[in-house]
Amino acid sequence: MLKVAIAGLGVVGYASLELLEKNKKLITEKTNKEIIVTAVANRNFKDISSFSDARYYDDALEMIEKEEVDIVLELIGGSEGVALQVIEKSLQKGCHVVTANKALLAHHGNRLYKLAKENKAHLGFEASVGGGIPCLKGLREGLAANEITAIYGILNGTSNYILTKMTETGGTFADILKKAQDLGYAEADPTFDVEGIDAAHKLALLASMAFGTEIDFDNVRIQGISEITPIDIAYANELGYKIKLLGLARNTEHGIEQWVQAVMVKNTHPVAQVNDVFNTVIIEGDFVGRVQFTGPGAGGHATASAVIADVIDMARDLYAPPFSYQQLKPAKALKLEEATNQYYLRVECNDHPGVLAQITRILGEFGLSILSVIQHEPSSEKLVPVVFTLAPAKRLLVWEAIQKIEALDDVKSPVTHIKVENFL
Amino acid sequence: MLKVAIAGLGVVGYASLELLEKNKKLITEKTNKEIIVTAVANRNFKDISSFSDARYYDDALEMIEKEEVDIVLELIGGSEGVALQVIEKSLQKGCHVVTANKALLAHHGNRLYKLAKENKAHLGFEASVGGGIPCLKGLREGLAANEITAIYGILNGTSNYILTKMTETGGTFADILKKAQDLGYAEADPTFDVEGIDAAHKLALLASMAFGTEIDFDNVRIQGISEITPIDIAYANELGYKIKLLGLARNTEHGIEQWVQAVMVKNTHPVAQVNDVFNTVIIEGDFVGRVQFTGPGAGGHATASAVIADVIDMARDLYAPPFSYQQLKPAKALKLEEATNQYYLRVECNDHPGVLAQITRILGEFGLSILSVIQHEPSSEKLVPVVFTLAPAKRLLVWEAIQKIEALDDVKSPVTHIKVENFL
Repeated sequence: MLKVAIAGLGVVGYASLELLEKNKKLITEKTNKEIIVTAVANRNFKDISSFSDARYYDDALEMIEKEEVDIVLELIGGSEGVALQVIEKSLQKGCHVVTANKALLAHHGNRLYKLAKENKAHLGFEASVGGGIPCLKGLREGLAANEITAIYGILNGTSNYILTKMTETGGTFADILKKAQDLGYAEADPTFDVEGIDAAHKLALLASMAFGTEIDFDNVRIQGISEITPIDIAYANELGYKIKLLGLARNTEHGIEQWVQAVMVKNTHPVAQVNDVFNTVIIEGDFVGRVQFTGPGAGGHATASAVIADVIDMARDLYAPPFSYQQLKPAKALKLEEATNQYYLRVECNDHPGVLAQITRILGEFGLSILSVIQHEPSSEKLVPVVFTLAPAKRLLVWEAIQKIEALDDVKSPVTHIKVENFL
Repeated sequence: MLKVAIAGLGVVGYASLELLEKNKKLITEKTNKEIIVTAVANRNFKDISSFSDARYYDDALEMIEKEEVDIVLELIGGSEGVALQVIEKSLQKGCHVVTANKALLAHHGNRLYKLAKENKAHLGFEASVGGGIPCLKGLREGLAANEITAIYGILNGTSNYILTKMTETGGTFADILKKAQDLGYAEADPTFDVEGIDAAHKLALLASMAFGTEIDFDNVRIQGISEITPIDIAYANELGYKIKLLGLARNTEHGIEQWVQAVMVKNTHPVAQVNDVFNTVIIEGDFVGRVQFTGPGAGGHATASAVIADVIDMARDLYAPPFSYQQLKPAKALKLEEATNQYYLRVECNDHPGVLAQITRILGEFGLSILSVIQHEPSSEKLVPVVFTLAPAKRLLVWEAIQKIEALDDVKSPVTHIKVENFL
């Protein structure tokens, strides 16, 4: 028998309790063990008496102190405070911990990983990345034989939903966000989702596991989707691209590149075909090539599937090294000046003769090759958008060129630039 | 230290040996163990001396007898003969076995599973389904908390390549097969691939793991792609579908449905977007919803990634129950008369007044609802194709209706019927 305590009965905690009750027989058939939730904690009372005999606490820390359990599920959320204390105290007692808390792990994962080791406890966090998609297990175990060269994907369902609907309807970010909030796909304060922070938390965990380096959240470059406009989505479409909020970690010779950004990807690439609230993780390995995991990145039921998968691993005595490697090395971040990227630029300029020549001369001065240009016949408006895609170039050169373009008399607003990723 | 013997140095065996040498350091960092290939066996001599010190045997059985190793990789192939003996003798000696051999497991898996248990040895077979895609681990462990309702996907790269190119070019099966053979994507004898047998081997393993039932290859209904014509691909496209060779296993109230067939799927569904030689496995679980694993389904390097993933699991002492459940129940197959499906019919008939009325009357007699009809204006030819899609109906009723339609005077050739799958 395996005793479980659940800290936090929000959507994920409640669904995890439901899952353990509904699929009890099946889980016993798969583990040869009975898994029983003996205690739950939630600040507000929720009546679970119809399907669970668990003791109820309103204080999670009191529960950890009083109960003797094998596994604690931390499903409170938040990167500090009670959630952190619950994990620390549980590990110190030698309890295994399962959490879905990416924010907390992005900030405290390195320390908690050591704390778990010291106490011979195990830390499961499949649910923290990709919701119900078993992508961490896939990376840590299924693809363990590979040297991972890159890992990237769509790690936030809310922002993917918004970009999908902006693409389908031509609506603005503000309008679609409002609709997403009405439908419950976006929170009242959507900052973490739409500004890329949630995706960056997840990316930092993936990068650590992929490359065997300590979690290095501070070096994830983060940019959200709130600046993306319908006009750029339309140009992207014209060029054969979609705009997606991607997280990417790449192991380059100069260090580890980590970013979350709205980028253009070829619309035929598998990452471009994952729409709405779905998440996807693509892993490139030296032997396997490219493997893609796609599914529901959030939601109580799907996330509970991943939480309980970790519990089942524990019931089966499957304890892989949490981050795949036995020891994590310090992470060396790629410096900005080493980054080489492709860019899309949109320049709004006066419809005067010679402007295009001035802009292209500046690009030439910085050695930036133009791959394509779009300038449509001017409408009645005085400002004409000119769109360029550039060949891969040192990022800083692109920055400097943009500044010089913006200084031209006939260029009237900041140059829009969006990274272009031409994945294999 | 962990000693490994490799039986069979074909593309997968050779790549597995390469992988263990190339990624030796990384694998030791992930397992805390050195994994050494101490012996290899291959009927024909291959010079591996530049990168391996393994002893060479030309007789795999002699190798198993003489060598004392922890793990044997069976990468010979073939469902009987030496491959089977290698596995049996290895398990009897208490060696763990890793194999990529789906044909062998489809036929002998139930027995070998017991043999492994009796000898406290472990049987790894990640590489046998989906090549490099860690889909078995995903199902057995990552989604273990779920009751699996259905599992389906594209399980054979050769036939997916052929259907993709038929769709892109309008070419016939025979022409595209020829080109695939020239490119090395299809074997000289392509029967196992294009007739669905290889996919059926894999499907039987997936079904067993998904539902906790014994492998029941004999009850997989198998149909290949050799009868698929450009005209049906064109009509499918017109109706918003693609034709894909799918394998599907579903747990219905009347028993387990297992088939491999070229079916029509909505072209917006994720399974329809997996092209060329890629494979994909989609798993539907009661809590997770739908999860999709996509990647290279064949090739030496990708398959070696999965073979060595199993070895790494063993080095890490991760021994999940091979088929997820601790005990496999006998499989109860869905009877043909219980099967309910949607169908596409193409009837070639004389361009006479009243023919459409006759056909639709027959469909009506059998209670078959028509969802859509296409009849284009006749060209110069005398025979006019009429295409129907039908609402879900008992399969046998559709069969009987087809027979009655074929008996009409104005219907001049067998009615083409293709299953339509409208997945969630």
